[in-house]
Amino acid sequence: MTDSPLPDPIPPTIAWAGDRVVLIDQRRLPRELVMLEATTVDDLCEAITSLAVRGAPALGVAGAMGMALAAVTGEAPDEAAARLVATRPTAVNLAWGVARGLAASDPVATACALAAQDVADNRRLGAHGAALLPREARVYTHCNAGALACVGYGTALGVVRSAAEQGRSPTVWVGETRPVLQGARLTAWELDRLGIPATLVADVAAASLFAAGRVDCVVVGADRIAANGDVANKVGTYGLAVLAAYHGVPFYVAAPTSTIDAACPDGGAIPIEQRPASEVTEVAGRAIAPEGMRVDNRAFDVTPASLVTAVITEAGVAQGPGYRPSLAELLRRAGG
Amino acid sequence: MTDSPLPDPIPPTIAWAGDRVVLIDQRRLPRELVMLEATTVDDLCEAITSLAVRGAPALGVAGAMGMALAAVTGEAPDEAAARLVATRPTAVNLAWGVARGLAASDPVATACALAAQDVADNRRLGAHGAALLPREARVYTHCNAGALACVGYGTALGVVRSAAEQGRSPTVWVGETRPVLQGARLTAWELDRLGIPATLVADVAAASLFAAGRVDCVVVGADRIAANGDVANKVGTYGLAVLAAYHGVPFYVAAPTSTIDAACPDGGAIPIEQRPASEVTEVAGRAIAPEGMRVDNRAFDVTPASLVTAVITEAGVAQGPGYRPSLAELLRRAGG
Repeated sequence: MTDSPLPDPIPPTIAWAGDRVVLIDQRRLPRELVMLEATTVDDLCEAITSLAVRGAPALGVAGAMGMALAAVTGEAPDEAAARLVATRPTAVNLAWGVARGLAASDPVATACALAAQDVADNRRLGAHGAALLPREARVYTHCNAGALACVGYGTALGVVRSAAEQGRSPTVWVGETRPVLQGARLTAWELDRLGIPATLVADVAAASLFAAGRVDCVVVGADRIAANGDVANKVGTYGLAVLAAYHGVPFYVAAPTSTIDAACPDGGAIPIEQRPASEVTEVAGRAIAPEGMRVDNRAFDVTPASLVTAVITEAGVAQGPGYRPSLAELLRRAGG
Repeated sequence: MTDSPLPDPIPPTIAWAGDRVVLIDQRRLPRELVMLEATTVDDLCEAITSLAVRGAPALGVAGAMGMALAAVTGEAPDEAAARLVATRPTAVNLAWGVARGLAASDPVATACALAAQDVADNRRLGAHGAALLPREARVYTHCNAGALACVGYGTALGVVRSAAEQGRSPTVWVGETRPVLQGARLTAWELDRLGIPATLVADVAAASLFAAGRVDCVVVGADRIAANGDVANKVGTYGLAVLAAYHGVPFYVAAPTSTIDAACPDGGAIPIEQRPASEVTEVAGRAIAPEGMRVDNRAFDVTPASLVTAVITEAGVAQGPGYRPSLAELLRRAGG
């Protein structure tokens, strides 16, 4: 049996194509699967800002591909790097990928290598994580930490996918993930393509699923993991972690080691992006709130390490409490 | 100073008009304020099922007005009562209002009296609740327990409104309340009309507002309160109660005594309505999830009495723990 007995039903989220970057335009999912081309750094910055491409691991590769675009278009690397990094402040992978591209003698080769590495790493991560799940695990996930958040395979959904490939019949509760609905639009679409049974719920339904004993574990991705194990991820993650702890349900964070920011001591040092109010006041271009309504649209929140049962990476699993040495060890193993 | 120095900026949610019921069509808010007329019991059942009128206290009055419609149209009272009660299973007020109308010698007069009583009761409830809030309270609320959930003034929002009328400068965090968005559409609209400062957030942002110390208390309504103090309310309420307890923030339930179901021993006996999947998979008529996606759309959840700091009614405040005698006493005081 090979790692991937069937053709992958989900095309690469982001790929290098000769002199340009080709991306799935995630704004148009689940209605249509349409590719977007970026031929300049500005094109790619616009794709990142507008969430045509999103997800921490994918942003890491996008950062490197942006530097590859700068190389082929002859843009000044330092300026390109600064513009790319400024698009999204919370995911550390973006800066990581840009730095890799900036340091490379051949940015195109580096970007392509990181893209290939992403899928291979996610398969390893998935296998590590699947070992933590019970058979027929009922997994609750938030946002999209799937193939669409990476080049392919996924992190949190990679764990589920690995369990499914092992014949262990996981099922998934998909939190819709307001305001941008990455759960309803992207995670639901992925799981449907993969044939993994899933049920969509409004985010607010999670608590009563926990209370009814219908969730075996939570598995989410991460946008940045501080050295002490505090986790920045899509807003709503922290609330799920509190609910999981309250109900005695394990709470797992699945992310590549490139998400660990050894220079960041704890969650208080992680910048939290505020996104446009219109993401909350409009859905699919239609107003759902009174005009001019004041909005707080923090895109991320911070989950303290004390609420995290384990961090699952391609280099192995770090168990809490006391993540500082175990995360440092994973970074060493990954050669980071 | 009178109770109401200014004309109410929000018209009555539901009113009797000679031979028909006139309602605000809440499906069309906040885009437009349009009235709907119901001339038959079936018209009113359709308005209830489609959420043109919703909110436990308003449903109580709607139940009585439905019996008034049966009286003027000559429909058989027992059949009309059964059809009305079957529209929404969770809010006990609906059955309460129908029973009042069914027992009345003049159902029209009874319905009108209940409507007037609703506003007067909510003003008393509001004053009781306002006494519990600190000055400049930052209140988090969920769904809509405002004037639009009643005939007027509101329960949870009545508490805020009473505090504002006393010059105590409350502000409100409005959870948008997916899937039907009663917070974004209705609560935001009401608070805007009332000139009370409010900030709209995606439901998932609540946890990080608690963590940042930016919420002084939670005030929500209720659809049914069991004899032991367990509370059924809009799905998402239970999660907020867990978050409030975790962060040491008081959690208040504001509801008229007609919401207390003395015959219901605890939350396990409260029927929880499942509503159509399309409420989750579509927003404003536009699909946001893959076609055919499996959905769990429970409309309510149950918050155990142990997480409720106090129940605020028109007849006074019951403090936890141990709600059984204090709720029974409030029912006695209310003459229920």
